Amino acid sequence: MTTLNRVKKPAVWRSDAAGGPARYFPFLKWLLHYQRQDLVGDLLAGLIVTIMLVPQAMAYALLAGLPPEVGLYASIVPLIIYGLLGTSRTLAVGPVAIVSLLVATGVAPLAEQGSALYIQLALTLALLVGLIQFLMGVVKLGFLVNFLSHPVLAGFTSAAAIVIGFSQLKHLLGISMPRSENFIEQVLAAVEHAPETNGITMAIGLASIAILFYFKNGLGRLLRRARLAESLVVPLTKTGPLVVVLLGTLAVLLLGLDKTAGVKIVGDVPAGLPPLSLPSISPGIWLALLPAALTISFVGFMESISVAKSLASKRRQKIESNQELIALGVANLGATFTGGYPVTGGFSRSVVNFAAGANTGLASIITALLILLTVIFLTPLFFFLPQTVLAAIILVAVAGLIDVKTFKHVWKYNKADAVSLLATFGAVLLVGVETGILVGVAAAILLFIWRTSRPHMAVVGRIGQTETYRNVLRHPVQTCPHAIAVRVDQSLYFANTKYLEDSILQMVADRPEVKHVVLIGIAVNFIDASALETLESLIHELRDAGVDFYLADIKGPVMDRLKTIGFVEAVGTDHFFLSTHEAMVALNCTN
Amino acid sequence: MTTLNRVKKPAVWRSDAAGGPARYFPFLKWLLHYQRQDLVGDLLAGLIVTIMLVPQAMAYALLAGLPPEVGLYASIVPLIIYGLLGTSRTLAVGPVAIVSLLVATGVAPLAEQGSALYIQLALTLALLVGLIQFLMGVVKLGFLVNFLSHPVLAGFTSAAAIVIGFSQLKHLLGISMPRSENFIEQVLAAVEHAPETNGITMAIGLASIAILFYFKNGLGRLLRRARLAESLVVPLTKTGPLVVVLLGTLAVLLLGLDKTAGVKIVGDVPAGLPPLSLPSISPGIWLALLPAALTISFVGFMESISVAKSLASKRRQKIESNQELIALGVANLGATFTGGYPVTGGFSRSVVNFAAGANTGLASIITALLILLTVIFLTPLFFFLPQTVLAAIILVAVAGLIDVKTFKHVWKYNKADAVSLLATFGAVLLVGVETGILVGVAAAILLFIWRTSRPHMAVVGRIGQTETYRNVLRHPVQTCPHAIAVRVDQSLYFANTKYLEDSILQMVADRPEVKHVVLIGIAVNFIDASALETLESLIHELRDAGVDFYLADIKGPVMDRLKTIGFVEAVGTDHFFLSTHEAMVALNCTN
Repeated sequence: MTTLNRVKKPAVWRSDAAGGPARYFPFLKWLLHYQRQDLVGDLLAGLIVTIMLVPQAMAYALLAGLPPEVGLYASIVPLIIYGLLGTSRTLAVGPVAIVSLLVATGVAPLAEQGSALYIQLALTLALLVGLIQFLMGVVKLGFLVNFLSHPVLAGFTSAAAIVIGFSQLKHLLGISMPRSENFIEQVLAAVEHAPETNGITMAIGLASIAILFYFKNGLGRLLRRARLAESLVVPLTKTGPLVVVLLGTLAVLLLGLDKTAGVKIVGDVPAGLPPLSLPSISPGIWLALLPAALTISFVGFMESISVAKSLASKRRQKIESNQELIALGVANLGATFTGGYPVTGGFSRSVVNFAAGANTGLASIITALLILLTVIFLTPLFFFLPQTVLAAIILVAVAGLIDVKTFKHVWKYNKADAVSLLATFGAVLLVGVETGILVGVAAAILLFIWRTSRPHMAVVGRIGQTETYRNVLRHPVQTCPHAIAVRVDQSLYFANTKYLEDSILQMVADRPEVKHVVLIGIAVNFIDASALETLESLIHELRDAGVDFYLADIKGPVMDRLKTIGFVEAVGTDHFFLSTHEAMVALNCTN
Repeated sequence: MTTLNRVKKPAVWRSDAAGGPARYFPFLKWLLHYQRQDLVGDLLAGLIVTIMLVPQAMAYALLAGLPPEVGLYASIVPLIIYGLLGTSRTLAVGPVAIVSLLVATGVAPLAEQGSALYIQLALTLALLVGLIQFLMGVVKLGFLVNFLSHPVLAGFTSAAAIVIGFSQLKHLLGISMPRSENFIEQVLAAVEHAPETNGITMAIGLASIAILFYFKNGLGRLLRRARLAESLVVPLTKTGPLVVVLLGTLAVLLLGLDKTAGVKIVGDVPAGLPPLSLPSISPGIWLALLPAALTISFVGFMESISVAKSLASKRRQKIESNQELIALGVANLGATFTGGYPVTGGFSRSVVNFAAGANTGLASIITALLILLTVIFLTPLFFFLPQTVLAAIILVAVAGLIDVKTFKHVWKYNKADAVSLLATFGAVLLVGVETGILVGVAAAILLFIWRTSRPHMAVVGRIGQTETYRNVLRHPVQTCPHAIAVRVDQSLYFANTKYLEDSILQMVADRPEVKHVVLIGIAVNFIDASALETLESLIHELRDAGVDFYLADIKGPVMDRLKTIGFVEAVGTDHFFLSTHEAMVALNCTN
């Protein structure tokens, strides 16, 4: 047997699961043992993430329909909170594309974009998301997010990326388009308004896209060929957004493109500390925002936990789902009161944080402090930043979210999963973002019910002189004419109980010589009340037709339940066997 | 081994499942072999069912908010159609209590009771129910009704019976109450209007109830003690409704109670053939009626198929679910065009039909012809029939539907099933009849998902020198420190995949000496795409921590899928074992 790259299990990997105050305040774990050499990585990572985050935060705020500074405000207090409460040491929390889209979808029907109410509703959404995530973490409902299956999430993310991409067309091309919830309308409007494209704006946007793609795909190769240290290559390839922001701003500033060519710019971004902000406490508004809040809570957490787990496993650290919910929940509460909007752990920035050497949550706190400095001192620099550059940053970021590979993989492996992926994808595009994810969850659940409603059933026979019984269709086995042993490969519950009954009656009807039916329960993990009732009526039906019914290989916990209710006694204890072999011997089928 | 009352399997029991034209026209089976002695039973049963059906049909029509003759019309053509197309030879189709309640709930918000529109909407509902059932039968979607689990149906039926009972209070007491969808409002209104009770009306109603209960429970004993032939006892005990109708009518007629005491009577019931009627074809109306139509299609079919199956098994006849849907569907279409409203197979009348000796569908056709004669010639007799008598008939019929026994049974057997029963019961009473059943279905599905989301997992060890491996907590077994074998008793899918991952990581974290983990897949019937992805990441996480992961006892179909997608190759074929024992030998855990 091969032994794969085996390494010693480090102590940290085990002890992270331990209790004590560090369970609820995970920063105690790293703070108490903080070493000077940790600081270098944390500082560098904090700086590089800041460079990425400043333009992204503003871009995502615009995507959410909010002023750019709201994205920056959301990148301060939440990051400090997550750095202290999160169990991931490398997760980079803040505004992300999909959550921003969900904020826009949730708030836009209730307030006019740009209004004070709009901003307050976004805050309120952060409050609700924070409460939902915090409470789910406290009562340990983290497992609920598993209802979002991977294919549903993949379908949702891909479709959301397309929706986000199209929503940025207006900024990229410098046209004005009516806001629409409906993707088809959005596409039609884009086609209609395309002739109004501002050429200079589009040129800046496309150039930015080209530069960003080069930084993403080409630069790394070049730098490696130039034998640059790997520890510098990764950070450098991530400075693309900063570069396009600088170039775009300079172009507008020097050529006066905002005035001469009508290039739309970000304009005045207020300088100074984040404001103290208060959410709405109107029950009507809470109710109206609830669907969006639930979607953001689930989708945001899923995105965050996936990247946190995948990074943690590389360093053998452990992520606690429920503590993550608490940390993200409190981070969102922090965003609520400091002028922000809903945040979560983002994929690309977390990967950069990790690669740049973040060792502890201090990296996240350093990023927050640098963003704070930016907000206080540097916002005037963004005055001439063209909106088309921010659109380009969003477009390149979401392009990577369109996930054809997963679809191909899932299609090959399992058509039912592929159907739920496609259903989600289609529903998000055709019906809407929130309805789409609900459709996906419902499709996944119904497909699972459907799948378990027609369980695999195998007539089994004895292999040679062993006590092993296998499917007669897959193995050369001995059977006997008067007794039939059927293995049902599924728990018995309301959705499959009629199928079981019909199948067994059909088997008996097809084989007039059969006098005994043995049901093998080795794969039956539970029998619900509906199935129990069906079994009772099946036994009566078979008895009326002169066929005896037996059960073999029933698991301990299932047998315990059957005894409680008197089923075993009613059927007769002599109709239960510990193993298939025992049953077949008793029925004179073999010896 | 005991051999239970074994009888020869009759040919009919097997051949009923056969194909040919008889598959779609089941009456060919009995018509071609019809014998003179069959006729006696069919005639008697047809007559007795008619005696029961006439008052019930009028009562249920009133319950549905329709004129009494509509109930009679719905008891002619649909019965002939079912007699020809149904696979049950003893099912008595026609108006039933719960479907009538659902008709009232569905139509009342759209039209004023008693108006021509109300009657047309009830017809339209029959059309939709007919189309839905027919199409479900044709495309073989009969299994969909299994989504209604037994506990949900029991909770629904009990709550609906209570709602029906309260809706009859106004007729029973002779008070006027505003119609309400809400059960609580209904109860409050009943309390408020109780002082207006008409004493004579109430007296007739209560006397009718007493007589009906006596016929139901006491009369049989008396007749048996008088040594009357059993074949007469059952039919006689079912004449209760006819007796109270006669007595009530005579009382009003002779004492002039309708004028002197204000007892409300049925009044003019038009005589003559059922009218040719046309449903609405407005898409808006269809859409508005769709929820009610779906509920009636499912609930009606469930009630019908349960009684059909239970009666058929007593005579070793077979019921074909999809043909039953077709037969009920066409029967409802028949009701649509002959002035009726939705019908289904009813429990009590079917039992009477069976007990009175119905041998073939001809019994149902005879009932239909007798009802036709009634409609043409006898309706003037119902003029003085007091409404309170019909209310008494309904009350006694639905009293038997309140099913405390099932609740106790389910509560003892399985709390999750009991919760879905209670949720349905509560939702029907507190929210409404249609919402209630949806709540129940959703609760049952979510409880099933929840149940499968935390699968039973057992660490197993070897029993003595056998090749059998069992739960270390239940059996005295040998284990070894460096390898752990875990059996997971559930298919792996999106809702339980994180639980599996967390549990295994926890097990390994708790046992630092473990170098090998073997996952035993004997009870894993499938692995979906989400679970596959989780397994892949779990394997990486374990590998990073110096732990190897193996799979044993994976079933053939599951293994085939894993090979398709390249998982087996990626993990290494030497990491798969045919049995737990093989794995433990290879890992030097045993010999």
